[in-house]
Amino acid sequence: MRVLGVDPGLRLTGYGCVDGGVARASLLEAGVFRLCGSSPAPSISARLAELDRDFRELLERVAPDAVGVEQLFAHYKHPSTAIAMGHARGVILLAIERAGVPLIEVRPTAVKKSMTGHGHASKEQIQRAIQDRFRLEHLPKPPDVADALAIALYALSRAAGRAQPRDTIHA
Amino acid sequence: MRVLGVDPGLRLTGYGCVDGGVARASLLEAGVFRLCGSSPAPSISARLAELDRDFRELLERVAPDAVGVEQLFAHYKHPSTAIAMGHARGVILLAIERAGVPLIEVRPTAVKKSMTGHGHASKEQIQRAIQDRFRLEHLPKPPDVADALAIALYALSRAAGRAQPRDTIHA
Repeated sequence: MRVLGVDPGLRLTGYGCVDGGVARASLLEAGVFRLCGSSPAPSISARLAELDRDFRELLERVAPDAVGVEQLFAHYKHPSTAIAMGHARGVILLAIERAGVPLIEVRPTAVKKSMTGHGHASKEQIQRAIQDRFRLEHLPKPPDVADALAIALYALSRAAGRAQPRDTIHA
Repeated sequence: MRVLGVDPGLRLTGYGCVDGGVARASLLEAGVFRLCGSSPAPSISARLAELDRDFRELLERVAPDAVGVEQLFAHYKHPSTAIAMGHARGVILLAIERAGVPLIEVRPTAVKKSMTGHGHASKEQIQRAIQDRFRLEHLPKPPDVADALAIALYALSRAAGRAQPRDTIHA
């Protein structure tokens, strides 16, 4: 089974695709879409159109059986960042829906706990856990790539019917 | 000149299209897309796909020369509502960009001030102003329709190069 994990953002969207059984899933492809590279900074509409294009190409290329995306929570420190992220997430969810690929929404704390044992693990702890899990030579960077791979692995376990009880508890 | 105004939301997206010169613009079409009607409530992805379909059909039908949408601000009372609105706004901006129609982002306070003289007018004041402006028999409902028409009228004045100085002042 092939599962794509996505960590949407308006500047940086991380993605990671894993393939195989839960215990032996291999890393198929991972990376980030950067939407802030050019100068002058493109408009939000132009960024969304670029994200949409990039993401639909990715969906077509890796042809996942399911896509994992984090659930939304209301407790954001920076509302403007959260709203910007909402724009990117809206475009990602639309592309998934239009492609007819099943969506698996996962709890951020459940993803972190499954990777590290701690629901509030740091970004670096997730990066190290992903490095160990796939025996990578280097720490996966930026952290958004590691986050996306952690989401993919956790969504894979969910899709394979091996969800942990903690997944359904509001942590 | 034909300008479409949009007030995006995940449950209700108001729209209104005006046509003609700034002083004599007529109301071409206005309404709302409701995305919460069916039971059980559709997923956010399904709502976004429906909004995308409805809005692209609207764009094709009214063929506006420009689309007006409110700028985003960070001071929302309910972050989760703002994030949900971000999803809808992302889908709307993507459709506008892909259709190649110019986007006019307008300040909510400037829109309200241009309609009523007050930057913090109530929803009902906007509804009454729109009713007067277009000599409507009934108060336009829900308020989202009136908001969208106010956005369209203000965006039309901007597009026609008649923006008020206050438009550029952070009120």
